[in-house]
Amino acid sequence: MPRVAGLIAYDGTDFCGFQVQSEVPTVQGALEDALKELTGANCRVSGSGRTDTGVHARGQVIAVEAPWRHSLEALRQAWNQRLPDSILVRCLTEAPQDFHPRFSASERTYRYTTWAPAFEGDGGRRFPLVDRFALVLPKRPDLEAMNGAARLLIGTHDFATFGQAPQGENTVRRIVSLFWEQVEESLPVLDQYPSERLVLTFSANAFLRRMARNVAGSLLAVGLGRWQADELAAALNAKDRSLSAPPLPPNGLVLERVQYAEYPDLFSAHISC
Amino acid sequence: MPRVAGLIAYDGTDFCGFQVQSEVPTVQGALEDALKELTGANCRVSGSGRTDTGVHARGQVIAVEAPWRHSLEALRQAWNQRLPDSILVRCLTEAPQDFHPRFSASERTYRYTTWAPAFEGDGGRRFPLVDRFALVLPKRPDLEAMNGAARLLIGTHDFATFGQAPQGENTVRRIVSLFWEQVEESLPVLDQYPSERLVLTFSANAFLRRMARNVAGSLLAVGLGRWQADELAAALNAKDRSLSAPPLPPNGLVLERVQYAEYPDLFSAHISC
Repeated sequence: MPRVAGLIAYDGTDFCGFQVQSEVPTVQGALEDALKELTGANCRVSGSGRTDTGVHARGQVIAVEAPWRHSLEALRQAWNQRLPDSILVRCLTEAPQDFHPRFSASERTYRYTTWAPAFEGDGGRRFPLVDRFALVLPKRPDLEAMNGAARLLIGTHDFATFGQAPQGENTVRRIVSLFWEQVEESLPVLDQYPSERLVLTFSANAFLRRMARNVAGSLLAVGLGRWQADELAAALNAKDRSLSAPPLPPNGLVLERVQYAEYPDLFSAHISC
Repeated sequence: MPRVAGLIAYDGTDFCGFQVQSEVPTVQGALEDALKELTGANCRVSGSGRTDTGVHARGQVIAVEAPWRHSLEALRQAWNQRLPDSILVRCLTEAPQDFHPRFSASERTYRYTTWAPAFEGDGGRRFPLVDRFALVLPKRPDLEAMNGAARLLIGTHDFATFGQAPQGENTVRRIVSLFWEQVEESLPVLDQYPSERLVLTFSANAFLRRMARNVAGSLLAVGLGRWQADELAAALNAKDRSLSAPPLPPNGLVLERVQYAEYPDLFSAHISC
């Protein structure tokens, strides 16, 4: 049976996260169900990491051993035909010897997208064409203050304040880059609908559970003037999970990319990825 | 009973269009149901026009007469609390004497969003984080050719080739502006996911049924080299609905704005619109 590595995208809105749980829809469950339909076999799909309920991915990496005698391109197409529209197998490749999507990963990159409205003071509103993949903020945050605070978190730290480690692991992680930027929309948004897109990009060797959303929420607390940067530093140093600012909701978060230092060209031969 | 005009946004994915039909979910139906829950009365909500199944709106305009004794801001909030997340009442105002959202409208503006992928030759793919509000094209179309063809349609013409008139109306409409543009995304899209956003903006005094999607499909046929511009002109002149290129699917289409020449400041006093 060939062992295959795959690059996966999904709209996580309607899934209870990546990892299989009984009785609820998960991305891993949908991938395994479609593969069972296709091959008749119960194949275990492993991922680079779990994503929470409602979190999206453009670049989740998986591996699976499946009884398949045709080409990987044929497997990709047949698999996609049996998956819900919200999940896409972008490309497949033969997995290198000893490759594991989680344990071989050297770096993960997430993005959190927010919109700052052109008006203020109407915090609790929904925005039907925006909410699925972004958080609309109550007002424009201070980008410089957030990036100043972000620099305090870059590097190797014990991030116990911001997330939970899998059993048997410690809570030390290395954040490689962390910054907010305003993304220009050269298309004017009519009638002052939310108008400035502010995006947080974070890369780390690995993320604790909830870490991405807690870090994003804590930086935003600084940007909105609810926290000073030194309160963020104190919270980090306290290593106390009760001291994180509230996590941002999952809708704005996308797992963009997983990197494998040992296999830098894992999917690069696949032009259609 | 006060007569109220409203500005509405919705994600049309899960609705069978704006206009009420029995047994299927519609935007108008959801607005009326929520209002009935709120006031106990059967109120008829009229709109500026029907949108097709799956078409979205940022700026649909409605009017309704409802038994309501409190402020319009209180009505807006209470109504929004009872609506599904996919529909938002952006703002409400007292309707001017003789105002009708459809018959008073002088101009409608739609946008159709497409993405040209960085690669070619994999046309039938789904893109989970893109598909809801845009069409992914099989390859990059020729923008200049599309805008050359678009100029042939601007002005007052009989658009019978491209759509159906409501009973008792003719098929003459006036297109005020019609152009494709590339919208820069200064945020690089990782791993060559669809990478150039190409948007068609069209304004007309009114649209025939299906006209926006048929015109978009016909211009795209020119852009992809399937049609020459003079074939588009011939199709227009033939006034024969069988001669339109296939309509584009609804997911990329958004009703952005409805203008009322007689009431230019209808919602402008509402900072939170």
